Amino acid sequence: MKKVGIIGLGRIGKIHLENLINKFQGVEVVAAMNPSETGQSFARRLGVPLVTSDADAVINHPEIEAIIICSPTDTHADYVINAARAGKAIFCEKPVDLSVDKVVQTLQIVKDSRVPLMLAFNQRFDENFLQVKDQIRKEKIGTIYTLHLISRDPAPPPVSYIKNSGGLFLDMTIHDFDMARYLIGGEVVEVFAKGYNLVDPEIGKAGDIDTGLIILTFDNKATAIIENSRKAVYGYDQRLEVFGSEGMIRTENPLKNNNIYYNEEGAHQARHLDFFMDRYQLSYQREMEVFLQALQNNKPMPVTGEDGLKAMLIACGGCQ
Amino acid sequence: MKKVGIIGLGRIGKIHLENLINKFQGVEVVAAMNPSETGQSFARRLGVPLVTSDADAVINHPEIEAIIICSPTDTHADYVINAARAGKAIFCEKPVDLSVDKVVQTLQIVKDSRVPLMLAFNQRFDENFLQVKDQIRKEKIGTIYTLHLISRDPAPPPVSYIKNSGGLFLDMTIHDFDMARYLIGGEVVEVFAKGYNLVDPEIGKAGDIDTGLIILTFDNKATAIIENSRKAVYGYDQRLEVFGSEGMIRTENPLKNNNIYYNEEGAHQARHLDFFMDRYQLSYQREMEVFLQALQNNKPMPVTGEDGLKAMLIACGGCQ
Amino acid sequence: MKKVGIIGLGRIGKIHLENLINKFQGVEVVAAMNPSETGQSFARRLGVPLVTSDADAVINHPEIEAIIICSPTDTHADYVINAARAGKAIFCEKPVDLSVDKVVQTLQIVKDSRVPLMLAFNQRFDENFLQVKDQIRKEKIGTIYTLHLISRDPAPPPVSYIKNSGGLFLDMTIHDFDMARYLIGGEVVEVFAKGYNLVDPEIGKAGDIDTGLIILTFDNKATAIIENSRKAVYGYDQRLEVFGSEGMIRTENPLKNNNIYYNEEGAHQARHLDFFMDRYQLSYQREMEVFLQALQNNKPMPVTGEDGLKAMLIACGGCQ
Amino acid sequence: MKKVGIIGLGRIGKIHLENLINKFQGVEVVAAMNPSETGQSFARRLGVPLVTSDADAVINHPEIEAIIICSPTDTHADYVINAARAGKAIFCEKPVDLSVDKVVQTLQIVKDSRVPLMLAFNQRFDENFLQVKDQIRKEKIGTIYTLHLISRDPAPPPVSYIKNSGGLFLDMTIHDFDMARYLIGGEVVEVFAKGYNLVDPEIGKAGDIDTGLIILTFDNKATAIIENSRKAVYGYDQRLEVFGSEGMIRTENPLKNNNIYYNEEGAHQARHLDFFMDRYQLSYQREMEVFLQALQNNKPMPVTGEDGLKAMLIACGGCQ
Repeated sequence: MKKVGIIGLGRIGKIHLENLINKFQGVEVVAAMNPSETGQSFARRLGVPLVTSDADAVINHPEIEAIIICSPTDTHADYVINAARAGKAIFCEKPVDLSVDKVVQTLQIVKDSRVPLMLAFNQRFDENFLQVKDQIRKEKIGTIYTLHLISRDPAPPPVSYIKNSGGLFLDMTIHDFDMARYLIGGEVVEVFAKGYNLVDPEIGKAGDIDTGLIILTFDNKATAIIENSRKAVYGYDQRLEVFGSEGMIRTENPLKNNNIYYNEEGAHQARHLDFFMDRYQLSYQREMEVFLQALQNNKPMPVTGEDGLKAMLIACGGCQ
Repeated sequence: MKKVGIIGLGRIGKIHLENLINKFQGVEVVAAMNPSETGQSFARRLGVPLVTSDADAVINHPEIEAIIICSPTDTHADYVINAARAGKAIFCEKPVDLSVDKVVQTLQIVKDSRVPLMLAFNQRFDENFLQVKDQIRKEKIGTIYTLHLISRDPAPPPVSYIKNSGGLFLDMTIHDFDMARYLIGGEVVEVFAKGYNLVDPEIGKAGDIDTGLIILTFDNKATAIIENSRKAVYGYDQRLEVFGSEGMIRTENPLKNNNIYYNEEGAHQARHLDFFMDRYQLSYQREMEVFLQALQNNKPMPVTGEDGLKAMLIACGGCQ
Repeated sequence: MKKVGIIGLGRIGKIHLENLINKFQGVEVVAAMNPSETGQSFARRLGVPLVTSDADAVINHPEIEAIIICSPTDTHADYVINAARAGKAIFCEKPVDLSVDKVVQTLQIVKDSRVPLMLAFNQRFDENFLQVKDQIRKEKIGTIYTLHLISRDPAPPPVSYIKNSGGLFLDMTIHDFDMARYLIGGEVVEVFAKGYNLVDPEIGKAGDIDTGLIILTFDNKATAIIENSRKAVYGYDQRLEVFGSEGMIRTENPLKNNNIYYNEEGAHQARHLDFFMDRYQLSYQREMEVFLQALQNNKPMPVTGEDGLKAMLIACGGCQ
Repeated sequence: MKKVGIIGLGRIGKIHLENLINKFQGVEVVAAMNPSETGQSFARRLGVPLVTSDADAVINHPEIEAIIICSPTDTHADYVINAARAGKAIFCEKPVDLSVDKVVQTLQIVKDSRVPLMLAFNQRFDENFLQVKDQIRKEKIGTIYTLHLISRDPAPPPVSYIKNSGGLFLDMTIHDFDMARYLIGGEVVEVFAKGYNLVDPEIGKAGDIDTGLIILTFDNKATAIIENSRKAVYGYDQRLEVFGSEGMIRTENPLKNNNIYYNEEGAHQARHLDFFMDRYQLSYQREMEVFLQALQNNKPMPVTGEDGLKAMLIACGGCQ
């Protein structure tokens, strides 16, 4: 029985806690930390023995082997460092930090402490993208020529959020950078990027863009073309297409239902989902599963801190 | 160079004439008959040497080997008989006649005259249905359990037409009866049929139904379920689904275009086609091609007069 | 805070228990009964205070207002009767019993006890079918002419199960009978049914059929055509199509993922799901939600014991 | 009755001749020129009065008002100039010439001669792309943000062809450049282009690329992203996606049929079409129709020589 502790019980933290308790028989959540009462009562209701507002009580709990970090971004690095120094395995929501320097320092400490760290790029574990990767591995696509990635949010976040987000490339495109590296299986050697403020002038005033277009050239000659937008009136849109010498795969969006309505005007289907958490629900469970399996079997983590750093460096090629 | 004559230059006759001239190099249309000027001028424009209002001049033309009969239904039987007696190969639009007795007599004369006769069930030559048949032949479906056929017209024909149509089963469902026999590859041993007057009370007053539901049990244990309606507001709808021990095939309708429009309400596609001739355009060319090939190679006709008779007998199980 | 007890922690019972604890804030599961240890330890792990093998201890628990019955079919009627006599609201998995007489008696006792009873036809709460019903309510289809229902299981259950299942119509088609009544909003006045043993001769030897074809005529002139098969090699297949004077809706199956792979042979998509519980996962949560809401607001139950009885009577029209 | 002459009866010329004769009642093809016998006999068979190997006999024919030029590219400019000087309306296959200078000179002569010239960018008249343009005109997309264009050929042309093609951008991408200008309705202010030789080293040796990636920035802030490949194993692939403030449209490829086959592995559809002429068949008829209508009604030509020049200048921004 693996014993784990969780830090931060906001939106994502609650999902991880629920999954840890309901979906994994061999795991026990010994302690949960959240600064405010809402998250704490959620943990109590699910029967977590120690519920606290003190992160150290979780990190240093003698029985706990692994720490799940789901707190706000600006606290990640410190908790990772403390957990590493306490010798715990770490599962950390992305990013480790918005500063490249801080990330580099933190990863060094993790490395020195010889603890495993998994960075939670959950989209890798979406059933669609997993299958794409699987087809690539099986050489169904042959040599990859191009990868098209389109990610569009249903609506921009509040401008207050945008101001502290690190910018479109670091906040949103980072997932596409990671996905491109993951699927293409190479490293980026050239970045071409354009940014536009088309959706809302307030975003421009806040110093950010809302529409991005990036071309990544990889060392294996593959090219990734990424388009991002903060606003698609038709809902949450994330698609990709990998084209190679032997075939092509496209990933379509799930819609709200599988019905088609035919009337005099034509054929009508439901809207896209409204929210990334509806789309990626299962991916949170699967990423936790692979973390626990890697831990159990002493295998390397499937997504590392270095993966996070590399995606970040691509973003900063575009944003600095 | 095969020399052919054509009788009747209405909607379908024009299509066959155009195809004969443009699409088949080894054929020469020597003569064309139409009672009125419109059809005649069409034939003249396309360069047909002999254009006439006298069917006998075509049927008895010494150079002509094959007669294409596209005239109104109530003239088919006589032209078929005359052509058979003149020793010509015959391609005849369906049906040979609305009376079973007349059909039986006509087919007997054709048989006695030892001339080839192809009955033009064009839907068999639609690219979708051809491929379904091909998959069945390749045993991709295994043993056929059920066949679902849905045929819905965009709007009912005029009541005047309906009065002389022979009724829904003989006028519309006849295509589905033929398709069921063709795909299942067996003979019907039991017919269960229901008819309703739901679309327009005038159709009921004319003594016909506008909605039909038929279950055909075949000698090989397969079952066909047919639904017909005279009116689908969303356009011309013809689909089928074959389900068997090893798989299933569904045939979808082509839409007016291949676009998908996404807005706040959802995803929208174009209407179905409005007209069966848009849907089956190519099938007219292909059925002529197989007729000409069978003729050329002295092979049996792919659709015979008996096929037409058998479909008719199923219909009359439901209408008499 | 509604206090509930649950009886039976097999496959479905576990799902309901998990949902009750994780998804509904205003509910407390006070007691859980299961005869064997497996189910009991599941309940303990989720923190249920009273875990027992004694159903009466749950039914008669003084704090409990509602009983969730998920035990084997042949125990349903007795638990329903006991719960009704104890004055508890009841949520019962379908069917109440395989004997019509027993169902009638049980429902009478429920009625006399004036307790609410919801019968768990979960498919009504599937997001696709809910939206179809919603479109019908909004008159997007107009007058319903026909409803096609196709339900095919990936593989037949063991013959031992089939022997005690009540037969195909009562075990499998019952869902389609309920769905037809629910969507068409009328009562059945005529049943035409055919059954075949095509999939596995062992099923025939056990006195059952594996393929069914049923036509239901409703009092509002709508017709439902149902096809059922115990085996579809391509996976779990449940679709429907409602056709009416103003439009048509089709419900497609979800596939295992949303990818399309294109190679020299064509375009390829994933398999259907393998299991009804993958398909209807969310429907279990939603049916519990509507039960709890009806309870909270003193509203009539959305699916009643009479609904179950009526579906059963249709089935027995076909099986007795 | 408009009287026209046609020059060049290769693949495209034959299609135009057939359409002119069969599809347009108010047109008479008075003369047809082709250097070799094959094309000539085709024209004779269709009843063209004057069939010749002398282009001047067509261009200077006193009855002819319009010249359809379908001869090889390197003859276009001269025939256009001659026809312009003879005062004839001109329909010319693209491009006018591979040299920008020659095109500029030719268009100047056309302008000075005050004759109408339509350049045959047939893809504009594809039913899918026409509908996209129509939706844009109706402001269904709102302000256009991005346009993605993917064009992939099933297989590269012979290297001998490539050597004289003007290169990928001028030979293949030119259609996408025109489509981008047409749909976005603005002019290009910036071109970013990358080219790769991935498909066949022989193409590289011939000095060309086989894979292209181009980003066009328009004066109205819209961006077009174009990907081109000379080889897609799965068939002829041309898709686009327009994304804007109010919605998005995607154009999908037609497949060889509309069937879906389901077996144990999943759901399978047919291949893409193999050949651009299968895909764009109807577009040739429609472009001729709009040419004839513009002529008849003295309206400006829907695609002008300047449109051709502008697309060419974009290509040369990328290829010189």
